[in-house]
Amino acid sequence: MSLSTSTIKYIRSLHQKKFRQNYNKFIVEGDKLARECLQQQYFPIEGLFATESWLVAHGDTLRLAPEKIEEVGPAMLGRISQLSTPNEVLLVVEQRKYELRTGFPEGRQVLYLDKIADPGNFGTILRIADWFGMGPVLYSPDCVEPYNPKVVQASMGAIFRVPFVEMELDVLKEQYPDLYIAGTDMKGESIYAFQPPAAGVMVIGSEHHGIRETYRPLLDTVVSIPGDAAGGAESLNAAVATGIVCAFLHSRKERHM
Amino acid sequence: MSLSTSTIKYIRSLHQKKFRQNYNKFIVEGDKLARECLQQQYFPIEGLFATESWLVAHGDTLRLAPEKIEEVGPAMLGRISQLSTPNEVLLVVEQRKYELRTGFPEGRQVLYLDKIADPGNFGTILRIADWFGMGPVLYSPDCVEPYNPKVVQASMGAIFRVPFVEMELDVLKEQYPDLYIAGTDMKGESIYAFQPPAAGVMVIGSEHHGIRETYRPLLDTVVSIPGDAAGGAESLNAAVATGIVCAFLHSRKERHM
Repeated sequence: MSLSTSTIKYIRSLHQKKFRQNYNKFIVEGDKLARECLQQQYFPIEGLFATESWLVAHGDTLRLAPEKIEEVGPAMLGRISQLSTPNEVLLVVEQRKYELRTGFPEGRQVLYLDKIADPGNFGTILRIADWFGMGPVLYSPDCVEPYNPKVVQASMGAIFRVPFVEMELDVLKEQYPDLYIAGTDMKGESIYAFQPPAAGVMVIGSEHHGIRETYRPLLDTVVSIPGDAAGGAESLNAAVATGIVCAFLHSRKERHM
Repeated sequence: MSLSTSTIKYIRSLHQKKFRQNYNKFIVEGDKLARECLQQQYFPIEGLFATESWLVAHGDTLRLAPEKIEEVGPAMLGRISQLSTPNEVLLVVEQRKYELRTGFPEGRQVLYLDKIADPGNFGTILRIADWFGMGPVLYSPDCVEPYNPKVVQASMGAIFRVPFVEMELDVLKEQYPDLYIAGTDMKGESIYAFQPPAAGVMVIGSEHHGIRETYRPLLDTVVSIPGDAAGGAESLNAAVATGIVCAFLHSRKERHM
């Protein structure tokens, strides 16, 4: 019923990126996300910490070794949790590192995230890629860490389904010189008229800085989301812009089929 | 240089919805948002509280009566602020209440938000409406309060440009019986093929519950955003879905012109 001081200290250390990377673990919290995590096969679960009522409701369906399951009271859960509102269950889970080992995904449009620093946006983009079947998601090393708790929460479980690969865009281009690379920016061809090849990469820049200068020569084309010319809005949220671009790419694909 | 206890108490009370409504005021914080607020004409500014350095940089351009401007130190700003990270400037601003006085906007597609409770989503949707020139935004009385600080922040200034009108959907339909009302849901006509009339309303339901039962008989059609049939994602974020719907409506309009 009670956790040792070292266990508490260990779990709490995982609130910080440094220790998540040292231990190669991350935290998954909340009933819905925990159940999605328990259903997947790719991320080994090190420990499950849950209230008595949660264990009564879900204990029978858990395919976890008993020694990995700890019942904790709400107060203890509050101590190890990263959430501001109470929850019933917390998992400590092993991180995965994906690579593009088997080559570039054939016949697919794939996203490349350039310095997406906001964790909510990164997680929401994983969710978008999940919705449109557009994984893997590639991302620059200076993006937010994908195991950041806010990324995990915003992904709504997509983090367990959509692979994410950290790599520089120029390294990708070196490995796949014929790859068609489009980018989103304020001044480009309208996404409404854009006819992409069957496979390629769509680079999403950060909300405030767009796509970095050093990546621009790698782009085969630039597309934009037309707005109201008379409007005062400077930009769209990065995840919203990504959703719009993905929907148009998906609509083209549906027409091809 | 120093604020009275009653002033501090008053500003801090505006962190709560109840007092925002009692006083009919709200808070605008941060350099960028404050400068957008200072440029607009519709929301009277009651007071400006800023650090010395901010006032040195921007004081000359302020069109505010001197008695409305207070210099405060960073520690005091931290006490009256709602943000977790320090900022340089805070405004107390008068709320506006919009109505559809002059009739339904002609030749326009307008959004109706049904129980959008997440402030980040509500603010991001205002920003989307701003981008696509789709104001006013109509919303159900059980949505999050638009003057919630997280709505204001997420709107990135759109709150000063896009009118928002609280009303029940059935009241709207009573007032404009011929109005074409579409709704977004999981099972409907593909938004890729949807051909809307020149003017109408698009109802956005909440992420988890969709459009409420009592509003469904008011819908002329239901549209969906097609996803990957093999994917595991249950839904898109409400603001992302709204962005996609608005982009397709906007692309239809561009083709008409």
